[in-house]
Amino acid sequence: MEVKKIFLPESELPRKWYNIAADMPTPMEPPLHPGTGQPCGPEDLAPIFPMPLIEQEVSQERWIDIPDEVMAKYQIWRPSPLYRAYSLEKFLDTPAKIYFKNEGVSPAGSHKPNTAIAQAYYNKISGTKRITTETGAGQWGSALSFCCALFGLECKVYMVKVSYQQKPYRRIMMETWGGTCVPSPSSETNAGRTILEQNPDSPGSLGIAISEAVEAAVGDDDTKYSLGSVLNHVMLHQTVIGLEAQKQMEIAGDYPDVIIGCAGGGSNFAGLALPFVRDKINGKDIDIIGVEPTSCPTMTRGPFSYDFGDTVQMTPLLPMHTLGHTFVPEGIHAGGLRYHGMAPVISQLLMDNLVRPEAIPQLETFQAGITFARSEGFISAPETDHAVAATIREALKAKEEGKEKTILFNWSGHGLVDMAAYEAYLSGKLADHELAEEEIERALADIAPLPKPQQYKG
Amino acid sequence: MEVKKIFLPESELPRKWYNIAADMPTPMEPPLHPGTGQPCGPEDLAPIFPMPLIEQEVSQERWIDIPDEVMAKYQIWRPSPLYRAYSLEKFLDTPAKIYFKNEGVSPAGSHKPNTAIAQAYYNKISGTKRITTETGAGQWGSALSFCCALFGLECKVYMVKVSYQQKPYRRIMMETWGGTCVPSPSSETNAGRTILEQNPDSPGSLGIAISEAVEAAVGDDDTKYSLGSVLNHVMLHQTVIGLEAQKQMEIAGDYPDVIIGCAGGGSNFAGLALPFVRDKINGKDIDIIGVEPTSCPTMTRGPFSYDFGDTVQMTPLLPMHTLGHTFVPEGIHAGGLRYHGMAPVISQLLMDNLVRPEAIPQLETFQAGITFARSEGFISAPETDHAVAATIREALKAKEEGKEKTILFNWSGHGLVDMAAYEAYLSGKLADHELAEEEIERALADIAPLPKPQQYKG
Repeated sequence: MEVKKIFLPESELPRKWYNIAADMPTPMEPPLHPGTGQPCGPEDLAPIFPMPLIEQEVSQERWIDIPDEVMAKYQIWRPSPLYRAYSLEKFLDTPAKIYFKNEGVSPAGSHKPNTAIAQAYYNKISGTKRITTETGAGQWGSALSFCCALFGLECKVYMVKVSYQQKPYRRIMMETWGGTCVPSPSSETNAGRTILEQNPDSPGSLGIAISEAVEAAVGDDDTKYSLGSVLNHVMLHQTVIGLEAQKQMEIAGDYPDVIIGCAGGGSNFAGLALPFVRDKINGKDIDIIGVEPTSCPTMTRGPFSYDFGDTVQMTPLLPMHTLGHTFVPEGIHAGGLRYHGMAPVISQLLMDNLVRPEAIPQLETFQAGITFARSEGFISAPETDHAVAATIREALKAKEEGKEKTILFNWSGHGLVDMAAYEAYLSGKLADHELAEEEIERALADIAPLPKPQQYKG
Repeated sequence: MEVKKIFLPESELPRKWYNIAADMPTPMEPPLHPGTGQPCGPEDLAPIFPMPLIEQEVSQERWIDIPDEVMAKYQIWRPSPLYRAYSLEKFLDTPAKIYFKNEGVSPAGSHKPNTAIAQAYYNKISGTKRITTETGAGQWGSALSFCCALFGLECKVYMVKVSYQQKPYRRIMMETWGGTCVPSPSSETNAGRTILEQNPDSPGSLGIAISEAVEAAVGDDDTKYSLGSVLNHVMLHQTVIGLEAQKQMEIAGDYPDVIIGCAGGGSNFAGLALPFVRDKINGKDIDIIGVEPTSCPTMTRGPFSYDFGDTVQMTPLLPMHTLGHTFVPEGIHAGGLRYHGMAPVISQLLMDNLVRPEAIPQLETFQAGITFARSEGFISAPETDHAVAATIREALKAKEEGKEKTILFNWSGHGLVDMAAYEAYLSGKLADHELAEEEIERALADIAPLPKPQQYKG
């Protein structure tokens, strides 16, 4: 009997998050104030984030303790199992060994609660009563609602109106956990009202929703804002994935030659990859791949520059690979991968060639998802299918080259609330969306002309 | 650090299913042929089921080996974790200890694959190429599609038309796993065409869908039919749940005073309960509760009699608690609990007072589901909420009585594909459906006047 799932006992749950800032060969550039262009200090962020999270955002400590209260909530679904994908290997007839970390076992069905739990906790102990956030397709909003319920916090989610109307299941999940979800633009904020005056039928956008959520937090001492990706402290919390995976690979008596994760803002990729990036910095030979859609090629085509996190230029300028803060990608089904920028941590590691990007077109990702579902059983989120597709590419390359190889990828979430995407694929209604060169040029022209725009060279 | 989840290593997966027929104090009555009224022999079932399953249906052996090929597929999600519900206990402020078995970790999100895997395997080795089945809300159809994919079998699901139209997500799951799903009544069978001629707009029913699935199997040597509950071999396969739970409770250093499961056809309840019923027969003092909706009170109000398994009287007559094969319950959201009959195994155990029934109204079950989601994190299927509600009743009773008590319930599946039900509840659109006495009398009048109709006395 071959072991398929490697579990860790709860006593082996990591007790510290790993902060790669302590080990990066090139230190990250600081965020810049949107008004002054000067580096942001903690006081600039204090109106929207609680102080413990701001401290983590700028910390240079290698290891940061996971509080007992967060550990206790992690126990609801962590440590998550590490799987060996025997059936997929057999189907592909590959000499590669394929492992995946199953983050779909959380109540919200993805890796998002790894940081939502921590953020809810630090807000709770800082006296916050209410957390606001934005959500596109709803993964993040539902994860935060779940975690706010566990700590008795109110949760207010501004959900892009077109998604609010088209994807009611995630909204109902938020409400089941006690969160409040309003379609954005709403009439509850100045930002929302301004948009609605201009266009009462506005479908909304993530940029508008961020503006509303931030405004609602800034105006109220009891209320803070929360972000589900991109920022350093979010990457930090997600490292629990990779730290567990390292212990589990050791139990399996194996070590990965290739690490793969899909990357929108970068958090699930960072979560699995960063502890292994540390190993790479210390001399291990690992190929670490972040996978993005060809329709939103932030890493493969966007320069490394300073850009706003949001469309309406309210956030600090972040040093990141970006397609420009006004870039609007095609409406692909992997909603979580439609962000114009990439986490500063990942962006800097790309520049230092410690991780590399790969872009995959939509149809290939869904075909990979079907192959995975019919061999390994689990139906992946459309975002996760990007990691599955890259894994299949690597496994077939190993076959072609006749090489043994160990691949580890992050199965970041299940797709049971995204079945409409599979229907679109199965009925032949999906297309690939390759960006024309002039579209990319048009997008890049809009990036703030600030220090050091650089192209990733690979 | 208190342990929340008790895992078993895969090497501890049970290697045999437990067949309670060997231990029942009163042997079960045989099924009767619908035409002759005589006991059915294996030859009567051979056109629709493969022989290994027919043999299991009538077996008196206490332990039946789980084939290696089934074990290998069980490893995709089994052994499933046993949880201690600390947060729910705390919320209820109860002296009771609450454990639950999490069957939501399967790719289909419920316990259904426990038998679907076994049925797909036995069909495969018996030369079957295609399996037909019916499905209401889609839990069973999706589980069988998943398992057919793993064994390379075609799967054809007749889905009640009104559900097919209203609940597309389960249908798309079936298609993602490669199954074919048609709305029933369809024009593909005589049964379907007859109905459509009478009423082209027929919304369909489980009875019609069964007729279509059986007809499609009988007419083709390569095709067999599959049922997801009620029959003895289905109960047998589900015992893997309770066998694992026994080992896990031992690891926890505990033993249940109360066992709880929701019961529609009876399979998830039987799966957890039967190994503990054996302990009870051998002298243990356990209260074992099957929970049904007050709107479909098969066990609490239906007599123990012979009745047809389907509306159109094609199936054998089964000895069971029944509300009559023409009974149509209100359209409650726990679609899996709307069956008119109860598994013969469970029905006989009820008569022998080894298990007892409890009926709970719809609103109480959803309130329980909300309480569970906001404390333990997981969103339950509406069916499962019946078990949660009964657990909360027992825990509050323990509090009232100031008694320590250990409760174990089967968390049979998650509700992420059933969010519309929660929306209906949260928006105040749901009602309880208590049956009027005259409705019950009208239903019972239709039960076949065959040997020994008896009322369960408790």
